[in-house]
Amino acid sequence: MSESGAAQAAKCARAASFALAASDAQTRNRALTAIAEALQKNREALFAANALDLAAAEAEGLAAPLKKRLRFDEHKLADVCDGLCQLAAMEDPIGHEQLRTELADGLVLSRVSCPIGVIGVIFESRPDALVQIAALCLKSGNAVLLKGGREALHTNAALYETLRAASEGAGVPAGWAGLLTTREDVGQMLKMDAEIDLIIPRGSNAFVRSIMENSRIPVLGHSDGVCHLYLHEGCDAQMAARIAVDAKTQYPAACNAAETLLVHSAELHRALPVVAQALLDAGVTLKADERARAAIGEDRCEAAQEADWRTEYLSNVLSIRTVDSLPEAIAHINRYGSHHTDVILTDDDAAAATFFSLVDSAGVYQNCSSRFADGYRYGFGAEVGISTGKIHARGPMGLEGLCTYKYILRGHGDIVADFAQGRRAFTHRRLI
Amino acid sequence: MSESGAAQAAKCARAASFALAASDAQTRNRALTAIAEALQKNREALFAANALDLAAAEAEGLAAPLKKRLRFDEHKLADVCDGLCQLAAMEDPIGHEQLRTELADGLVLSRVSCPIGVIGVIFESRPDALVQIAALCLKSGNAVLLKGGREALHTNAALYETLRAASEGAGVPAGWAGLLTTREDVGQMLKMDAEIDLIIPRGSNAFVRSIMENSRIPVLGHSDGVCHLYLHEGCDAQMAARIAVDAKTQYPAACNAAETLLVHSAELHRALPVVAQALLDAGVTLKADERARAAIGEDRCEAAQEADWRTEYLSNVLSIRTVDSLPEAIAHINRYGSHHTDVILTDDDAAAATFFSLVDSAGVYQNCSSRFADGYRYGFGAEVGISTGKIHARGPMGLEGLCTYKYILRGHGDIVADFAQGRRAFTHRRLI
Repeated sequence: MSESGAAQAAKCARAASFALAASDAQTRNRALTAIAEALQKNREALFAANALDLAAAEAEGLAAPLKKRLRFDEHKLADVCDGLCQLAAMEDPIGHEQLRTELADGLVLSRVSCPIGVIGVIFESRPDALVQIAALCLKSGNAVLLKGGREALHTNAALYETLRAASEGAGVPAGWAGLLTTREDVGQMLKMDAEIDLIIPRGSNAFVRSIMENSRIPVLGHSDGVCHLYLHEGCDAQMAARIAVDAKTQYPAACNAAETLLVHSAELHRALPVVAQALLDAGVTLKADERARAAIGEDRCEAAQEADWRTEYLSNVLSIRTVDSLPEAIAHINRYGSHHTDVILTDDDAAAATFFSLVDSAGVYQNCSSRFADGYRYGFGAEVGISTGKIHARGPMGLEGLCTYKYILRGHGDIVADFAQGRRAFTHRRLI
Repeated sequence: MSESGAAQAAKCARAASFALAASDAQTRNRALTAIAEALQKNREALFAANALDLAAAEAEGLAAPLKKRLRFDEHKLADVCDGLCQLAAMEDPIGHEQLRTELADGLVLSRVSCPIGVIGVIFESRPDALVQIAALCLKSGNAVLLKGGREALHTNAALYETLRAASEGAGVPAGWAGLLTTREDVGQMLKMDAEIDLIIPRGSNAFVRSIMENSRIPVLGHSDGVCHLYLHEGCDAQMAARIAVDAKTQYPAACNAAETLLVHSAELHRALPVVAQALLDAGVTLKADERARAAIGEDRCEAAQEADWRTEYLSNVLSIRTVDSLPEAIAHINRYGSHHTDVILTDDDAAAATFFSLVDSAGVYQNCSSRFADGYRYGFGAEVGISTGKIHARGPMGLEGLCTYKYILRGHGDIVADFAQGRRAFTHRRLI
């Protein structure tokens, strides 16, 4: 799609967004079901398109994990269709009356949830993400511009065309979803602040950061995911070892994987050796400060540098630092972390409460793995991204993060001059 | 304050923000009361500082409305102290548990409201705004950087020093509030995205827009306030006249004053003449399209140009445009408006419902003045600004707009691998 193609798609999306915001839940839910049916019906064409992308990936020598992400097969199709049906069954996130106040006799204010408008999503190579993201936007009444990875070009085009036709056939306003394909489209998108209300980028740190720096449109997401585990004085060493192995190795490329282990100095010769042994057994490379390294054994552990405290390894590497107190652990996390998800290992609930209130992160955990930070695991049905910002949405963002609200005020000729001049008085009676 | 002074204030505010976020409501409320007492105690010094600013304004020939805004007298002091005491009595906006879900047996997720962190507020000449804004931030547990108008230099310094000393004396962490004074400070502030979480600019359109364009820090506020009144077919002409006069003239410099009147063509010779007469009697200059001008009388009304539909007059001027249908009125508002507050005049509730769902604005009103769009009138106690953006907060922003949330997850050694490998299952049981 040419530069003007991206601009045109954004304008169509904006035009469709008003009618979509006013659409009823039934139409949107019927469209979600229709998309699932159409995907099943077009399965052979979808698999054929995916075969083209997989062949190109093979020819270009793409790494095995990327090829795995690129595959759209029977199993992925079933997952995607399950997701669509679950979403159709979920409560409508729009049209909720969040507050109702009588401002004065006969003058009533309500606040009602509504869609944001037009969402621009830039996502990685997984083609199933295209359907999931479009479905979340549709359920929440938002128009969407979808920019997928180059590797998935054919699969994305086939999925997009299927969902577009099925949703429009079910009564969703034409133009509500647009597909963008080139790097130039992204540049164009970032400039269209009159047409696009929110950009959600998913991808590498450097990529997300460049998006955040190059647009006036609000951006929600995360660049880094430097998550911490802190072994507090007196923690359960066996539990800590289990959690550390899970947080580091269960999926090291995820943003919610742990990157740094902080150890209270009282645990250097108690819990740390147990935890370090478990990590080494799981194939993790350790990089520790001097005190921790002495406790683990210098032959089993590299020396950490200052840069390690800010590094998201995205692989089986973990940095380890010694602290002498809970406040020192908290200060380290607030200084070097990325405000994503941080964990304290302790049975001391007072220490955990201090950690919860002072650590400035989207997720603060006690005695469990940082890997739980995820929209599906949180019970949100699915997630459109994870935000490390503090404005609008924080942590895993589901449907709620795609909504805003408007104030509706109903009167009978009410004017401000009557209140300013003392002829009438506000009651501010809360009705909901 | 030098450039490095602004940077230092931001770093102090960030350092204080963590402890302030963990402070109890009692400390924050006590500090609010202590500030009110200190302001009363220092009244003579405050009035003397204000006299210096007023004398400088006189010497510089400042316009009368600006001098009025600049005045800090007995009456303003009483208002400010009342506001502080009301705020102290309000419910704590932080520490609210917004949701609680059992993710699996023994693994419970809560979402708890918390402060955003460090707020940078750039405000206009009214010195009483300094205390109101600082108080809203303190109540919500946020550190704040305050940049006031140059005209109020002495008054702001005296107010700031009083509130700083009183709040710190009441146990609020030192450095929680910083005062910035120069244009260079603003430039420095916009760069400090590691220390400042949110910027709220209040001031002229051009100023707010330049802030929005020159910072990576999220900005909440509004540049334009182009609000509409739409006279629907069959509206009550007398009511429409009352509301139009209030919306235009009660305070024309406000962002929620009306700038454009849309008239259904069926009302050109019925309601419009009544409304136009009332506006003319109130001293309003009318600028209308050809059809409306013919109905009003060409000698009583100027010809509107295309640029008028996008103009915020901020004075007693109103543009008038004829539309042939409700959808045409809605399309005009969504195209030319600023998504602030728009009003339909009608007793037809179905037409109003269509207007509410299709007009993409923070406030959508029926049969009342647009001037009600205000945090105090909405019953929020006070407002820190009005947002025309759709992300985070929309419309008048009170304490709630200064809060975010964090997810707290409490477990007993829970790891994701157990769920991924089918040994455990999510329950996702909603507890709150």
